[in-house]
Amino acid sequence: MTGKQREAKILDCTIRDGGLVNGWDFSAEFVSALYQALSRAGVDYMEIGYKNSPLLHHVPNAGPWAYLTEELIRTTIGEKTATKLSALVDIGRVDERDIAPRDESFLDLIRVACYIKDVDKGIELAGKFHDLGYETSLNIMAVSHARENDLNEALEQLNDSPVDIVYVVDSFGSLFGKDIEYLVAKFQKFAPNKTLGIHTHNNLQMAFANTLIGLDKGVAYLDSSVFGMGRAAGNCPTELLVGHLHSARYDVRSLLDIIEQQFIPLRERVEWGYTIPYAITGLLDEHPRTAMALRASADKDKYLEFYEKLTTVETHGAHL
Amino acid sequence: MTGKQREAKILDCTIRDGGLVNGWDFSAEFVSALYQALSRAGVDYMEIGYKNSPLLHHVPNAGPWAYLTEELIRTTIGEKTATKLSALVDIGRVDERDIAPRDESFLDLIRVACYIKDVDKGIELAGKFHDLGYETSLNIMAVSHARENDLNEALEQLNDSPVDIVYVVDSFGSLFGKDIEYLVAKFQKFAPNKTLGIHTHNNLQMAFANTLIGLDKGVAYLDSSVFGMGRAAGNCPTELLVGHLHSARYDVRSLLDIIEQQFIPLRERVEWGYTIPYAITGLLDEHPRTAMALRASADKDKYLEFYEKLTTVETHGAHL
Repeated sequence: MTGKQREAKILDCTIRDGGLVNGWDFSAEFVSALYQALSRAGVDYMEIGYKNSPLLHHVPNAGPWAYLTEELIRTTIGEKTATKLSALVDIGRVDERDIAPRDESFLDLIRVACYIKDVDKGIELAGKFHDLGYETSLNIMAVSHARENDLNEALEQLNDSPVDIVYVVDSFGSLFGKDIEYLVAKFQKFAPNKTLGIHTHNNLQMAFANTLIGLDKGVAYLDSSVFGMGRAAGNCPTELLVGHLHSARYDVRSLLDIIEQQFIPLRERVEWGYTIPYAITGLLDEHPRTAMALRASADKDKYLEFYEKLTTVETHGAHL
Repeated sequence: MTGKQREAKILDCTIRDGGLVNGWDFSAEFVSALYQALSRAGVDYMEIGYKNSPLLHHVPNAGPWAYLTEELIRTTIGEKTATKLSALVDIGRVDERDIAPRDESFLDLIRVACYIKDVDKGIELAGKFHDLGYETSLNIMAVSHARENDLNEALEQLNDSPVDIVYVVDSFGSLFGKDIEYLVAKFQKFAPNKTLGIHTHNNLQMAFANTLIGLDKGVAYLDSSVFGMGRAAGNCPTELLVGHLHSARYDVRSLLDIIEQQFIPLRERVEWGYTIPYAITGLLDEHPRTAMALRASADKDKYLEFYEKLTTVETHGAHL
């Protein structure tokens, strides 16, 4: 085990990112079983959902993990293990009155997701969580579309903020190893005080590989999800990370068991993972929303037509 | 496009490696359509099957692409395009009397697969094909199990042989980016006269990533298969390679079309790609045969039991 592997933290975001696939329709038993499995596997964090306010961000028919309450977490988790809990919030969607101080909460880490143009607001919001005693991260989404200068400035701001962890987020699953190396070096240069994290998507089957490149270059927080369950093409699979980093700290067996028991039947009902439309949006460095809409339609396997639509100047120009 | 990308050759081995999944049960129409699609995509080579002799290596119920004949290739392909044709042979399984001189053949490249202990025989056999006018490669299988010294010596022998291309073959899908870098550097050091190739498997979702690392380090021949169709966890997907290397030379559209028309229905009948048992044998750096047997059994989703079986000393000792 190298020093880098020793410092690595695995953050499983199955319930949160996977919830984007099934509308957070996980039973409390499922979430509890996952927490136990992740704990036995030695996974460092479990992200149990979003802590947005349903009043500020209403998702029709969303399950309870889209709007975490302390009550829900307590009744689901019961007794905490060494595996910490995290929640994600979006700026503008969180009611700060919903957030208890950390010593009254089951949550340890609150992660703030924002686009680069809102990094001021992101830092401000993360600062409030920091003041309540939480570990905090800021996850800069869609980094492949960020302007170089804007990103550098945002990182400098973050470097002087109370935010603990700054994430490289490959929202579109469009990045390759060289891109990860470049971004990590940039993040380290402009935010040297900060611990780094990485969150990948598997559109181009690069999620695990890119995560390992991040680790090799000094990223400490590695996002993953069990069986890769996450939006569209999904994430870096937790079982591969745990299996590969296998050491005194990690043990893959409980994950194999829960995949067999829970995720195989679940995958038969809802879809995530590598499919051609997600590969196409990844190759084109675009948000997967068009591909998600295609997969939900009767044309779900009309790949060539989809590609032509996205690459034809006329059609595309209409979005500019 | 970098210089490395300009020199790269994509070799699609769907029919040959994918044939290991469906017993080479491809219709002539399927193979012909694939050749047309690969030609339109700009793919450099199509491996159309094995050129073993059914008398020397009998596979029950194998389709015709396991035992290529000139007659079969000619009637299937009709008119050749710029896409060259290759066949794989195993040492000890090929009847040299079956091989016509290149100028009477539809084949351009004959690839010899062997384990490192048989590299002498592999070089001898490749030499005969060379003398018949073919391009040749030697594919050293299971390189992750080769002893360092044996590998170095084999490469030195290859360096002085008429073999054109020497392949790094990750038979077990167990290699990571660092391993590929290490092996490519070794191959370049000990066989500096040779062009290099890479053939990957996707047990750990590293096939595409590892192929790109090979390319970056100077490997020219990149094996892939459409929709990743190959033994067990499959290969680097041709559509990702073509889509990524997108340039004047490559065009992904015909591949999207054939995946939609042919590979989606095919994938519903036969299985390949990332599954947990293949991830397990990849993590353990083992041949996937135990996982293939599991997937063909009623216990196909008993992952934990399978893992315990492979990692328990008692059981494992019996194979030693």
